[in-house]
Amino acid sequence: MKAFVTGAAGFIGSHLVDRLLDRGHDVTGFDNLSTGFRRFLEGAQANARFRLVEGDLLDPAAVTAAMAGADFVFHLAANAEVRVGPDHPRRDLEQNTIVTWNVLEAMRAAGVRRIVFSSTGSVYGEPEVCPTPETAPFPVQTSLYAATKAAAEGMIAAYVTAFGYQAYFFRFDSVLGERYTQGHVSDLYRQLVEHPEQLDVPGDGRQRISYLYVRDCVDAILLAAERCTEPVNIFNLGTGESCQVSDLIVWITGHLGLAPVVRYTGVGSPFILLDCARMRAMGWKPELSARQGIVRTLEFLRGNAWVLEARA
Amino acid sequence: MKAFVTGAAGFIGSHLVDRLLDRGHDVTGFDNLSTGFRRFLEGAQANARFRLVEGDLLDPAAVTAAMAGADFVFHLAANAEVRVGPDHPRRDLEQNTIVTWNVLEAMRAAGVRRIVFSSTGSVYGEPEVCPTPETAPFPVQTSLYAATKAAAEGMIAAYVTAFGYQAYFFRFDSVLGERYTQGHVSDLYRQLVEHPEQLDVPGDGRQRISYLYVRDCVDAILLAAERCTEPVNIFNLGTGESCQVSDLIVWITGHLGLAPVVRYTGVGSPFILLDCARMRAMGWKPELSARQGIVRTLEFLRGNAWVLEARA
Repeated sequence: MKAFVTGAAGFIGSHLVDRLLDRGHDVTGFDNLSTGFRRFLEGAQANARFRLVEGDLLDPAAVTAAMAGADFVFHLAANAEVRVGPDHPRRDLEQNTIVTWNVLEAMRAAGVRRIVFSSTGSVYGEPEVCPTPETAPFPVQTSLYAATKAAAEGMIAAYVTAFGYQAYFFRFDSVLGERYTQGHVSDLYRQLVEHPEQLDVPGDGRQRISYLYVRDCVDAILLAAERCTEPVNIFNLGTGESCQVSDLIVWITGHLGLAPVVRYTGVGSPFILLDCARMRAMGWKPELSARQGIVRTLEFLRGNAWVLEARA
Repeated sequence: MKAFVTGAAGFIGSHLVDRLLDRGHDVTGFDNLSTGFRRFLEGAQANARFRLVEGDLLDPAAVTAAMAGADFVFHLAANAEVRVGPDHPRRDLEQNTIVTWNVLEAMRAAGVRRIVFSSTGSVYGEPEVCPTPETAPFPVQTSLYAATKAAAEGMIAAYVTAFGYQAYFFRFDSVLGERYTQGHVSDLYRQLVEHPEQLDVPGDGRQRISYLYVRDCVDAILLAAERCTEPVNIFNLGTGESCQVSDLIVWITGHLGLAPVVRYTGVGSPFILLDCARMRAMGWKPELSARQGIVRTLEFLRGNAWVLEARA
């Protein structure tokens, strides 16, 4: 396979690049390094089958040129800063919707027909059915992040019909592990670095939350892309299990050997638990538990202080 | 009300402008005249409460400036050329999705909080439930037109949550009447003008189709906007009744006094029949039947040959 990976220097993208190279594929990574890190690709750069193209997905000519010769696109680039949505709405539109359209058009020009797209479990909003299967209807959207991801899914699906593409949508739960830099767990870790004696936690501690280890995530993507032959293939991707936020806090503080005063601040995110039976039915199962994934994440953050500095 | 109408020189937009002026509102029409016609606004132009701003919705500064002072946006501008989707996919993305985002941002700048959006019944794809209610789930999209309209709905709904907007979505059936210039009926009419002895009709004649008269459509929009107070108000908008294509052909040829050889060409569009009970429950009902609407459309096309020339 000649893979083209957008967001290649990002958290999940860089793990996908590594795994594709491990399996003997050729990989072109495309990234503007706005939120990704060149250091995440140090291993890949040592491999002759990898090249990194530094470019912007908002520049159609650049994407098209870089994609020449590819036969499979893994479109992982996105605005990962879910929470800043309302302050910078243009970012969601551009980074989730418009760039996806540019990728689809570059594929037309380059003659590529297969695409993996990293969507999100938040397209289901606050679903009535929990765990939520892939067949659950989309709600009236309430977040720009989810709305622009759902928009991208719709455009890709329309291209499948119009141009004979084949698409794989992965609606992710929270993913973590090595190279995780943004989100709930790094926010908590950062607080404990700055003031180990106190920890402010969103919600009331009883919210449930679900985590998938990044290498398990990448394995699932590659398995589904290998096995599934429908024009549009949609998968929820998570462990299908959840933990309570208060347990998460115990795991984190326990692993770090800290005993902070924990203050629950009240407002929390809606709970999503994805029904991942479709993915498991293919024989995939996560190798690491949520707790093991958390430990890997903490070890990574502890060993790479530069990440939190870069995100400050 | 100080109304701001995008697509004001278009088919439905110009009728909406007329009706708003009739009711004593101030109206700013915004149109780039790419598919709309200045002639459709001749009546409105004679009214001191109307002004037309010729501008492009892809130019955020132009929309923002024109919107100053408005308190209600009617966003009707769109890529109405549903059928060219796959040949000019950028047009669907730009005209249905990106311009909607520009309108939403202009509203933020201008302090406008209420928006009517012209969506489409085709967001339901080929629905399992027929007639299809507003609560039917969206399918995996198959048309770029529907995908980009659904994307716009999602973005607007996200702005409702993020910024306290109030939104009205109207998922239209086929609309016709005076100033109708593009679609099934004008295609048939054009053929009969060019060669009255022969008529090629898509499908096999047994497809069913539903038509709403444009003034009934505009009345429904204004009624719902007046009465409904939810943050997001979604309405299917059609008569809720359908006719068979073969009946349509009899009505058209009968009205024109022609007896062409009719040839059914096989491929037709999927059938959509919207459940319009929600709209009717407000006391609205269409005044004209589909057949009466067809006659008005034919009379308009017959009296305005310039329209078909302009669309040639």
